[in-house]
Amino acid sequence: MATGRFITLEGGEGAGKSTQIRLLAQALADRGVEVVTTREPGGGSDGAASIRGLLVAGDTPWQRLTEALLHNAARHENVEALVRPALSRGAWVLCDRYVDSTVAYQGYAMGVDRGILAELHRLSTGNLMPDLTLVLDLPVEAGLARAGTRPGLEDRYERMGMAFHERLRRGFLDIAAHDPGRCAIIDATGDIATVHARLLDAVAGRLLRGAA
Amino acid sequence: MATGRFITLEGGEGAGKSTQIRLLAQALADRGVEVVTTREPGGGSDGAASIRGLLVAGDTPWQRLTEALLHNAARHENVEALVRPALSRGAWVLCDRYVDSTVAYQGYAMGVDRGILAELHRLSTGNLMPDLTLVLDLPVEAGLARAGTRPGLEDRYERMGMAFHERLRRGFLDIAAHDPGRCAIIDATGDIATVHARLLDAVAGRLLRGAA
Ligand SMILES: Nc1ncnc2c1ncn2[C@@H]1O[C@H](COP(=O)(O)OP(=O)(O)O)[C@@H](O)[C@H]1O
Ligand SMILES: Nc1ncnc2c1ncn2[C@@H]1O[C@H](COP(=O)(O)OP(=O)(O)O)[C@@H](O)[C@H]1O
Ligand SMILES: [Mg+2]
Ligand SMILES: [Mg+2]
Repeated sequence: MATGRFITLEGGEGAGKSTQIRLLAQALADRGVEVVTTREPGGGSDGAASIRGLLVAGDTPWQRLTEALLHNAARHENVEALVRPALSRGAWVLCDRYVDSTVAYQGYAMGVDRGILAELHRLSTGNLMPDLTLVLDLPVEAGLARAGTRPGLEDRYERMGMAFHERLRRGFLDIAAHDPGRCAIIDATGDIATVHARLLDAVAGRLLRGAA
Repeated sequence: MATGRFITLEGGEGAGKSTQIRLLAQALADRGVEVVTTREPGGGSDGAASIRGLLVAGDTPWQRLTEALLHNAARHENVEALVRPALSRGAWVLCDRYVDSTVAYQGYAMGVDRGILAELHRLSTGNLMPDLTLVLDLPVEAGLARAGTRPGLEDRYERMGMAFHERLRRGFLDIAAHDPGRCAIIDATGDIATVHARLLDAVAGRLLRGAA
């Protein structure tokens, strides 16, 4: 049975994940790879999308572990309905945020015990981990300035204050430092084409040699 | 520090939980006990109420483990925001459905592994268990006939078919049989006053001797 590759894009608000995932998907498709893109929270099913609505819009003052449970609920939907089936037929799955966002946001930035988050990930996904995680890194002010230019009401996390976003950035860097075989830190400063070239280099260096 | 008592009411659709919890709360208040009533999913916070909206209304075809995660998310809100604070100040908490409903519905009736449900309960609540669980037992047809007379749109579980509800009933009875120190099976046939008297007997026999 063919098995595709699972690539996640991670990073703080405005790092360029959603912009870069589109360009990376196109570049891989141009090389003949079947690519499926999704995002979290909210990808994979209508149910996941309704959970996203609770998390990223509005002002609900959730208990912090409740947030982690809701992200895991949305993740289970995405993994079961979309990610595993696509990987099984040999597609490459690109996912905009995954478990590292839960560890960085609910763990590093909000203080949920990371052992609990690891147990939840095991229960919710059977511990499915990406083959490659691209961590887009950028100074906090630059990311928030970029994010502020976006239209839309999904700004609950954006509004959480500088100290929160600094803990988040350090969290992502710490996660990557502890799992260098899976994670590549990508300098996300510079223009869109420059960052895209850095992502393609990382994917080529780590995964593409074996592909079509 | 005073510690109250935690009593849960369990059982299938239309067993009489919501009717009986009101009568029991009044009877305990009449004896001078501070009583707090809540329900799951949805009690304890606005966030929990919005999770309830996802679960009991509508037609979303959730992955079954997603349902369990959502119930645990709502339970964490209720436990942290309402149940633990009330118990700490010495109040008695009466809760309409709790962990046994998740084990009966998502476990026995829908097939989620019960070991996973036990781990989720431990992560979500620190394994907080009731002092007494009153399992209202009634033939499935009788419960559904009662439930059908209620107004409202919260009928997602009600519509799940006879085989589902039979597994549910057997699940609750099995849970009670395995934990007789905590659970009392209450015959829920007969009129409201008759059932109320049975509940009061069970509470008096197991908890009230030590109370005010
Ligand atoms: N390298 C870049 N330079 C300048 N602006 C960028 C760059 N990458 C993305 N943007 C813009 O910044 C905003 C946030 O980018 P987005 O891809 O939505 O970030 P994220 O998904 O990581 O939050 C968007 O308006 C996007 O067009
Ligand atoms: N012992 C009883 N005999 C007849 N009808 C009852 C009895 N207990 C409750 N009912 C009615 O049955 C319906 C379902 O009861 P309810 O308390 O809402 O059940 P549950 O909360 O367990 O689903 C309500 O309309 C209620 O008034
Ligand atoms: Mg984005
Ligand atoms: Mg009820």
